[in-house]
Amino acid sequence: MPRYALKIEYNGAPFSGWQRQNDQDTVQGEIETALAKLEPRAHNIAAAGRTDAGVHALGQVAHADMEQNWTAFRLSEALNYHLSPSPIAIVACARVEDDWHARFSALERLYLFRLLVRRAPAVHDKGLVWHVKNRLDLDAMRQGAARLIGQHDFTTFRSTICQAQSPVKTLDEIAITEHPVAGGLEYRFHIRARSFLHNQVRSIVGTLERVGAGSWTPEDVQTALNARTRAACGPVCPPQGLYLKHVLYADDPFA
Amino acid sequence: MPRYALKIEYNGAPFSGWQRQNDQDTVQGEIETALAKLEPRAHNIAAAGRTDAGVHALGQVAHADMEQNWTAFRLSEALNYHLSPSPIAIVACARVEDDWHARFSALERLYLFRLLVRRAPAVHDKGLVWHVKNRLDLDAMRQGAARLIGQHDFTTFRSTICQAQSPVKTLDEIAITEHPVAGGLEYRFHIRARSFLHNQVRSIVGTLERVGAGSWTPEDVQTALNARTRAACGPVCPPQGLYLKHVLYADDPFA
Repeated sequence: MPRYALKIEYNGAPFSGWQRQNDQDTVQGEIETALAKLEPRAHNIAAAGRTDAGVHALGQVAHADMEQNWTAFRLSEALNYHLSPSPIAIVACARVEDDWHARFSALERLYLFRLLVRRAPAVHDKGLVWHVKNRLDLDAMRQGAARLIGQHDFTTFRSTICQAQSPVKTLDEIAITEHPVAGGLEYRFHIRARSFLHNQVRSIVGTLERVGAGSWTPEDVQTALNARTRAACGPVCPPQGLYLKHVLYADDPFA
Repeated sequence: MPRYALKIEYNGAPFSGWQRQNDQDTVQGEIETALAKLEPRAHNIAAAGRTDAGVHALGQVAHADMEQNWTAFRLSEALNYHLSPSPIAIVACARVEDDWHARFSALERLYLFRLLVRRAPAVHDKGLVWHVKNRLDLDAMRQGAARLIGQHDFTTFRSTICQAQSPVKTLDEIAITEHPVAGGLEYRFHIRARSFLHNQVRSIVGTLERVGAGSWTPEDVQTALNARTRAACGPVCPPQGLYLKHVLYADDPFA
């Protein structure tokens, strides 16, 4: 059975997350339904990141095993045809080796979080950013973020329902950039790691926003991390600013 | 009566354009309704650009005359409160002189047109770009655009219902930039002039897309311009890629 890697863009708003669930709309479910239009049978695709309800993707990667020899072009065209009008698009497709795995071959995930700060509501980016009205201190957020870089026990920053065996993860980077917009600023958090715990990115961004607002100090982030208890975490921010942006492999299957 | 300049962002999709109409939702109508919540009476605001149905704005400018002395901050906060949940936001507000006029004091308008070229459908930018699937030749589009720069009779590129007294306008710039996106490219047309004819930008972009696709030559644009007849125009492109981006004044009232 030939295996295909799919690079996928989606708007998470109408979905109960990536992972297939009975009686709920999910991104995996929509793509598997489209695959069944091409080859009528049960499909079971694997993804690099199982994004939560409401979380978007710019570069989710999954793989699918097919019975027929599809050209990558025809497969992606047919999937996009059957996915319409769902806000899901196959933006790249490539034949890969049988032992290539979207999840287990991944070396690193890059998440983007978009945070809009201005008095006026979001217009063109409504549903695509987290909007707050209070000004934020970028230097303070960067100082708070620096406490989280490296290998740590991230119990404080993971959901109580997280199923990962270990709370120890290595955060490679939290870069925060500032972009002018009419009447305010947008902050973009670029967060890189080999893998993440459940709700880790939203727990981190929600906490760093409190640092930017001045209600936490950067040192409070260190204290929260050291506490190794969920109760020490700041507020978990909403999902609509979060994007799975890129998944890194030893050889880019789409290059 | 103190006069206030408003800088306005809106998504044009739900509106029958800027200009107030009976029994139709318009941007002007929404803002005047919000103003009437603050000072209950008929309001009549003037805007720099009377955008068509479906056209967006990043920097529309209008002015409103009030009876009370509002601080600019309180006026914009109150308007945003009453405009919600319409996709209209007051992103800046400033007190101006009584003889300052959003339309007649404007020296130049800048429109942005976003054109997405890829096989996959638009996801995050759905409704915010014009999407075509065929590849475009940027150099050819630039050569076609160059024919339109300067002072010309733009009869070919204006709607037959255009009410301007003269079809002669001066186009100062059509810059076309190319931006990579997953699975394709986005072209942005930056079009500057003191003022525009009705449907002029969409007639120009629709024609230049045909040049990019190879069904017109750049020289055909010259021939169409010289013909001075609406019948010679290429297809008028749809409104959802078009934004009134900036209005230039001798002194920026929002600076």
